[in-house]
Amino acid sequence: MNIVDIITKKRDGGKLSKEEIEFFVNGYTKGEIPDYQASALLMAIYFQKMDKEETFQLTDVMRRSGDTIDLTAITGIKVDKHSTGGVGDKTTLIVAPLVAACGVPIAKMSGRGLGFTGGTVDKMESIPGFKTAMEPEEFLAQVNSIGMAVIGQTGHIAPADKKIYALRDVTGTVENLSLISSSIMSKKLAAGSDAIVLDVKCGDGAFMKTPEDASALGKTMCEIGQAAGKKTVALITDMNQPLGQAVGNSLEVIEAIETLKGQGPADITELSLRLAGTMIYVGGKASSIEEGDAMAKDALESGRGLEKLRQFIEAQGGNPQVLDDYSLFGPAKLSLDIVSDSYGFVQKIKAESIGLASQHTGAGRLRKEDPVDLSAGIYLHKKVGDKVAAGDVLATAYGNDQAKLEIGAAEAMRAFVIGDDAPEKEALVKEVLGL
Amino acid sequence: MNIVDIITKKRDGGKLSKEEIEFFVNGYTKGEIPDYQASALLMAIYFQKMDKEETFQLTDVMRRSGDTIDLTAITGIKVDKHSTGGVGDKTTLIVAPLVAACGVPIAKMSGRGLGFTGGTVDKMESIPGFKTAMEPEEFLAQVNSIGMAVIGQTGHIAPADKKIYALRDVTGTVENLSLISSSIMSKKLAAGSDAIVLDVKCGDGAFMKTPEDASALGKTMCEIGQAAGKKTVALITDMNQPLGQAVGNSLEVIEAIETLKGQGPADITELSLRLAGTMIYVGGKASSIEEGDAMAKDALESGRGLEKLRQFIEAQGGNPQVLDDYSLFGPAKLSLDIVSDSYGFVQKIKAESIGLASQHTGAGRLRKEDPVDLSAGIYLHKKVGDKVAAGDVLATAYGNDQAKLEIGAAEAMRAFVIGDDAPEKEALVKEVLGL
Repeated sequence: MNIVDIITKKRDGGKLSKEEIEFFVNGYTKGEIPDYQASALLMAIYFQKMDKEETFQLTDVMRRSGDTIDLTAITGIKVDKHSTGGVGDKTTLIVAPLVAACGVPIAKMSGRGLGFTGGTVDKMESIPGFKTAMEPEEFLAQVNSIGMAVIGQTGHIAPADKKIYALRDVTGTVENLSLISSSIMSKKLAAGSDAIVLDVKCGDGAFMKTPEDASALGKTMCEIGQAAGKKTVALITDMNQPLGQAVGNSLEVIEAIETLKGQGPADITELSLRLAGTMIYVGGKASSIEEGDAMAKDALESGRGLEKLRQFIEAQGGNPQVLDDYSLFGPAKLSLDIVSDSYGFVQKIKAESIGLASQHTGAGRLRKEDPVDLSAGIYLHKKVGDKVAAGDVLATAYGNDQAKLEIGAAEAMRAFVIGDDAPEKEALVKEVLGL
Repeated sequence: MNIVDIITKKRDGGKLSKEEIEFFVNGYTKGEIPDYQASALLMAIYFQKMDKEETFQLTDVMRRSGDTIDLTAITGIKVDKHSTGGVGDKTTLIVAPLVAACGVPIAKMSGRGLGFTGGTVDKMESIPGFKTAMEPEEFLAQVNSIGMAVIGQTGHIAPADKKIYALRDVTGTVENLSLISSSIMSKKLAAGSDAIVLDVKCGDGAFMKTPEDASALGKTMCEIGQAAGKKTVALITDMNQPLGQAVGNSLEVIEAIETLKGQGPADITELSLRLAGTMIYVGGKASSIEEGDAMAKDALESGRGLEKLRQFIEAQGGNPQVLDDYSLFGPAKLSLDIVSDSYGFVQKIKAESIGLASQHTGAGRLRKEDPVDLSAGIYLHKKVGDKVAAGDVLATAYGNDQAKLEIGAAEAMRAFVIGDDAPEKEALVKEVLGL
């Protein structure tokens, strides 16, 4: 086999065999195939696309390129959740306790934030004492004892994807359904759960701008999951404004707690219940999504979700008193209000700008090695559809560095689009795929 | 400017500006842009193509990337000829003397053979004493005194093209009209002549397999030449069998001499006269191609072409007695006949196979540094349309190494396609473009 022949075959619209895809991915990962041939092939794939089978094979060989997590020691159908990346998305911290409270085991690996999106691991680490690293045996034992565990990414998951993604990022070959889907799914499949619920964001603040594109991505990922023998469902959800009101690590954890107390913002509550209901259903504890939704609602209203979060925090070394005393998070020393200079209705809050604003306050990182201010972030007082007058506080920026705060506040100001008429209300969950 | 933006722009069908093309070509040539971004851009160009203006800019910036030859010290309109690569193509050795004999100065740089195509420099070096390298002043002085000089490539011509071509070769991005045309024309324009006649081969043995593809290539190259202010004409010519009967260095020189003596094969004689006639016309010595053709024919029939070849050989240090005594070439010690095993008509002689066969006998090289056996090659006794009987000698392989000769002869045998019916005769010159 010869990489130039493989490039030419794809360039001319041919279908790559399993062997050819393996030859490319393994050869590239080992450094036997140079970057310049890999990027030419990726660009050919960009134009000629990959069919369902090629996309699955690409995912599968990338999945097999590193460690795969064995969760068979955990009883029950393990369900994973993945979001394609949003701003203010703290659903994992709400959904995992609700689902675990309904008997579906959650053994989840989460990531850190990078750029304008946050990461669950950073958020959890804002809880005093909380540990996001543990030995595999501990991890499995915790899921078997309390029904859930969430840790940072361990081991060497899908190194082929890592190398290919880094190349795509600098060669204009990111935006291809098969390449995006296989990148996400190779890591999800390596993580070992039996079923997967995907939250595919769409809108201004998401990678997929339109419902159609998000739907196509969701469909492709569901096909991959199903080809791998895992029940996979995708919810297409709105990201035309940040989720909830809090953006930033401890701010988001507090909002998650509030949500489990039944006092959360409407959007984050709705999305969490829908995701949890779907996970309960694919986890086999409900015979329909509707039944799953009802079970999730009951877990929230009865306080069993909040109780599960308390157990989870305690099990991972965190101080469970944070649930009752938010001052234990060590709040930011400084704050700055963002004040409206016009009258009207909030038409849009650009999620990417709020994410960037939060990053600027110190809540996010530009490079992997940057430190994070866990107390920093943006809190939205107004959301899309709200009426505002000049002088109203739209949002507040929190942090510990006045200069950073001012940059963040200026960016947050730019996120708000205010107009004369009340905007039409967008559905939060636009479509459910893979059922 | 940012190379990822340039890649993405072309990927999405955009038109690159002169500045963007310069940024890419110069950055890549200097090593500031890495191979993997260059190959991604080349693949994007493969799919999205380049328009006339982009193609000219690409050619022009590659032309300007190295030395450009200044021929202004030569009086008259200097005309260059370029062939896209054929087997048995010794036309330069016939055409240049005919054209020079008609008063059009020829100041030409030629290449060496590589792979299955031969090179004029190797052919000329089969003449005892012949030198293909000389100082620029000598080169210009020779053209002014006898009307022609042909040397090997000197200096640092279009290094950007060299680097980009090497990358295209290993990334499946060779086959694109703009990229092929700009590669050829950047070198031709750097070589300094005032007008260019292109011989674009088409058929089995050529890079362009169909007359349509060859015609598109010819058209694009003529457009580039004209945009550069040089009269450029392209002849689309048949390469469904080797040109003439001789393939191999000294064998081809002998055939060129025979042709200038009026005793050459019909096809090589016809093509040489057509090319020479066109060059005389674009060189301003005839008012039409027909008049140019007639002048070329007269130069041949009168022996003035042969006389010019004698002056040329002498001027470049070669022994002019070779014209009268072919044994001075030092013939091959060994020969092997290729004998037909069937009756019928020769339908086709695969030019590429004959080129490979000649290479195997020792006449060609696989790598640039390989030595060449100047006496080796293949001599065709039968051509397309000829009737053959079992036992007839189709061709003879010449060389100095029995093992190589046998490999070459076996390959030459495979080149012959023999069938029952007389094949239809193909026109040798299919189209003339750029007038």
